[in-house]
Amino acid sequence: MKKNINIKEELNVVEKYIKKDINKEKTISGLYKYIFRSSGKKIRARLSLIASSVKDHKDRFKLASIIELLHTATLVHDDIVDNSSFRRGVKSVNNVWTNSHGVLIGDYIYSKAFILMVEIGNKNILKELANATNDISQGELIQLDAIKNVKISLKKLKKISYFKTGRLFEAAARTGALLCSSNKNYINNISECARNLGILFQIRDDLLDYSSKLEIGKPSYQDLREGKVTYPFFYAYANGDNQDKKNLNGLLGKNNLNKSKAKTLIESLYGIQKTELLAKKYHVKTVECANKINNLFVRKEMIELADIALKRDK
Amino acid sequence: MKKNINIKEELNVVEKYIKKDINKEKTISGLYKYIFRSSGKKIRARLSLIASSVKDHKDRFKLASIIELLHTATLVHDDIVDNSSFRRGVKSVNNVWTNSHGVLIGDYIYSKAFILMVEIGNKNILKELANATNDISQGELIQLDAIKNVKISLKKLKKISYFKTGRLFEAAARTGALLCSSNKNYINNISECARNLGILFQIRDDLLDYSSKLEIGKPSYQDLREGKVTYPFFYAYANGDNQDKKNLNGLLGKNNLNKSKAKTLIESLYGIQKTELLAKKYHVKTVECANKINNLFVRKEMIELADIALKRDK
Repeated sequence: MKKNINIKEELNVVEKYIKKDINKEKTISGLYKYIFRSSGKKIRARLSLIASSVKDHKDRFKLASIIELLHTATLVHDDIVDNSSFRRGVKSVNNVWTNSHGVLIGDYIYSKAFILMVEIGNKNILKELANATNDISQGELIQLDAIKNVKISLKKLKKISYFKTGRLFEAAARTGALLCSSNKNYINNISECARNLGILFQIRDDLLDYSSKLEIGKPSYQDLREGKVTYPFFYAYANGDNQDKKNLNGLLGKNNLNKSKAKTLIESLYGIQKTELLAKKYHVKTVECANKINNLFVRKEMIELADIALKRDK
Repeated sequence: MKKNINIKEELNVVEKYIKKDINKEKTISGLYKYIFRSSGKKIRARLSLIASSVKDHKDRFKLASIIELLHTATLVHDDIVDNSSFRRGVKSVNNVWTNSHGVLIGDYIYSKAFILMVEIGNKNILKELANATNDISQGELIQLDAIKNVKISLKKLKKISYFKTGRLFEAAARTGALLCSSNKNYINNISECARNLGILFQIRDDLLDYSSKLEIGKPSYQDLREGKVTYPFFYAYANGDNQDKKNLNGLLGKNNLNKSKAKTLIESLYGIQKTELLAKKYHVKTVECANKINNLFVRKEMIELADIALKRDK
């Protein structure tokens, strides 16, 4: 086992590694630099580093960078899908350049990640990441069906959370573990732990859209305005009578939203409260899985991530 | 060497192989079926099958399918980039569904191709295809710089033709050869031959946009209307005096184009003629490379493809 691991320092190495790619073509290097100029939390790279921390290996940073590249490629494509003008407070690629640039630089970053994966040359890692990438696109496609679809099932919402977010968390942990361990229990336990952590992250993300306190108590309701049915809306709708359902339908996909009216309605139907309960359930699951991990450093780090996820407010 | 190869029959096997993928999610299977319902020429899969025809191998069809999947993913994303409503006479995904569906089903098809590649498990093949995919996205990104850019160099136009089209032709041939041969001369000769063939294909594609006789002698001038500088415009511009350059600038990116005026201007400045010469040059190069291939069947097939490319009118 590696000694004296400092994940924060390791994440700086990952950041430098990613920024090293400078394309000769100005348009490409300009886009690439723009996309990676802000640091971000790098939760997925962090997961990869935690999972691979059980042994020294020359490709640990490369693998964590691959995970971050894959994640970033999905974000760039997501901004086109959601027609977002901003990402983490800065203008999105499709806003500064065009949708075309977003599509293509996303493809560039995806394939860059695959080039690096092939360099590592571990077939199990390749398999997991190719499958995860495919599952993520499936999750996003299924989510398009959730738009203005009040009849979506809880099962389908959970599938979306898993495919869209949990899947890459899981793959980050599994491939990190595969790189540095042959212990099947360890590999499976950390994968399951990361999967639940990812779903927890997505639930909290959905909640934040309804309850963010960043802008003086005003939630953004971006999902609601886009007509996207997520957990808070789902639970409120399930608890509502016919008149409530009619009112909720009226909110879905409405750009000029009466925010306080929306807040009152969804809170009165326990939309937020039930979603918070679901988040707590996935926090418990994550911690339970973490407790099955024998390596104390890894266990501690995973529990810390679970706590961060439960409490995160941005 | 394999005996009695019938490439047309083999392409039918590839088509069936691709269509076999049925996703449980209706949205995904619906999109997938729609995209693959028309057959297309499958030149790239054909190239792969030709290159791998030198030996029996269980993965020949899988590899050819991968090449076709990669190509199709680029087409789906291209339709978003070019804002195209039609592809091969049928409505594009972004037209029937939305840009979002196009972005995501493109990602789905890309990653599907990577899953199959990993199954084949040949590191050299994986490396070539990951690099080719990255180069294609670079070619498309560089082409965005060619929009309304009359100062673009011939060198850059050639780089676009190579990266955008020649690169996947080359990779199709190289990986087919890598799968079934360890003869370095064969692998390099057929790769070089396919690269030149791909560039020839792109030059002819650019020409067709200016000279298609499908619609009773009326070229579509789609590139010109999108403001895309391709060979015919480039040569005309290079040969023009100041007044010609001014007139050409006026045509670029104009949606309501006076087609006969455009035709007269570009033809009078040898835009078509010089592009046809360039196509002939790449035809000669392709045939020269083909003649270096010892395998008579492969040589004959490659020369046939070169002739088809030179004469193609759709």
